[in-house]
Amino acid sequence: MTAAGRPTSRRPGPRGAGDARAAIHEAAARLFANRGYTGTTLRAVADAAGVDVALVPYYFGSKSGLFAAVAEMPANPVEIVREVLDEGLDGAGRRIVRAFLGVWEHPDMGAALQSLFRASVADPVRAQTLGQFLDTDILSRYRAAVGGPHADLRAALAANMLIGLAVSRYILHVNPEASMTVDEVVDLVGPVLQDILTGGPLLAR
Amino acid sequence: MTAAGRPTSRRPGPRGAGDARAAIHEAAARLFANRGYTGTTLRAVADAAGVDVALVPYYFGSKSGLFAAVAEMPANPVEIVREVLDEGLDGAGRRIVRAFLGVWEHPDMGAALQSLFRASVADPVRAQTLGQFLDTDILSRYRAAVGGPHADLRAALAANMLIGLAVSRYILHVNPEASMTVDEVVDLVGPVLQDILTGGPLLAR
Repeated sequence: MTAAGRPTSRRPGPRGAGDARAAIHEAAARLFANRGYTGTTLRAVADAAGVDVALVPYYFGSKSGLFAAVAEMPANPVEIVREVLDEGLDGAGRRIVRAFLGVWEHPDMGAALQSLFRASVADPVRAQTLGQFLDTDILSRYRAAVGGPHADLRAALAANMLIGLAVSRYILHVNPEASMTVDEVVDLVGPVLQDILTGGPLLAR
Repeated sequence: MTAAGRPTSRRPGPRGAGDARAAIHEAAARLFANRGYTGTTLRAVADAAGVDVALVPYYFGSKSGLFAAVAEMPANPVEIVREVLDEGLDGAGRRIVRAFLGVWEHPDMGAALQSLFRASVADPVRAQTLGQFLDTDILSRYRAAVGGPHADLRAALAANMLIGLAVSRYILHVNPEASMTVDEVVDLVGPVLQDILTGGPLLAR
């Protein structure tokens, strides 16, 4: 408040580009936290931000891009997953593990992922939001890439392995994985992930 | 403080059994939180509690029993792991998954595990304490049961799979695992865990 008792706010008027982007970001953070990931539409974000709905994809690309931006990630993990899976399933196990470790070990990306995971574990609504994001925009890409009758189960097992790896190595620091090099972890987890995606016990079902 | 300014404390005198147990419990909680799991000895707990060192195993059995009691678990998970592994590696994958789901779905045990995990993820020192407990008293039993040149790697991969399963199903509620029955999860994860423990890609190394 100023001495005259009025709020210190910017002069009213048409919104600049930075204002619109910030308003979308702020509205999305609130909606993701309150309504979850699947319950938040781009239109609802635009309405809450008071902007045209076309501005949301213009600034953030997609709902997953908006989620990544709200989580302060410098890149959208969905795009990274898509790039890795677009190269096909041959050798995907090792490529996925290497890309996964890459994002967790990138200073800004890793910090954002740790914060997102901590916030999600601490709060059931945020946990549900992250779970929906994983299901809708990450596991769905695994299911599509794997195909076949057990695609959903293979994707779920792959998620188990990667989530467990991140928690072991980056959160709880359990050895030996916490002290292995990236190459060593790729050599260890890559073949098991490959087996989960394309071979192994699931073929016998 | 009373009106006279003195602290309201119990009358000094010899400690009863309940007092000694409570003092050990309290001292252990403090030491685990400050010094981690490996940095906390039964002797240090006894000293901090002001009791004879023999009373610690008398009341809590072992360091892992003390850790489980501090985490308000009605049973020591180390004992559950030991029982399952004592039956041998044949069929261990499915037995382990069933026992693991059993503790997470037991009302008191599951609540204690969720609290322990949440507290550990929120705080790096507690994370390290849980990581050391897992390494020292859980993974060590897997390593011993599995044996062979890759026992440490097989145990690490098993931990990844189980930690990821717990986070997916009980923390983030990711489908399909969050909505599967126990039998369905046993059928899904059991064979993969068996492969990790006794077969699979690690044999080719």
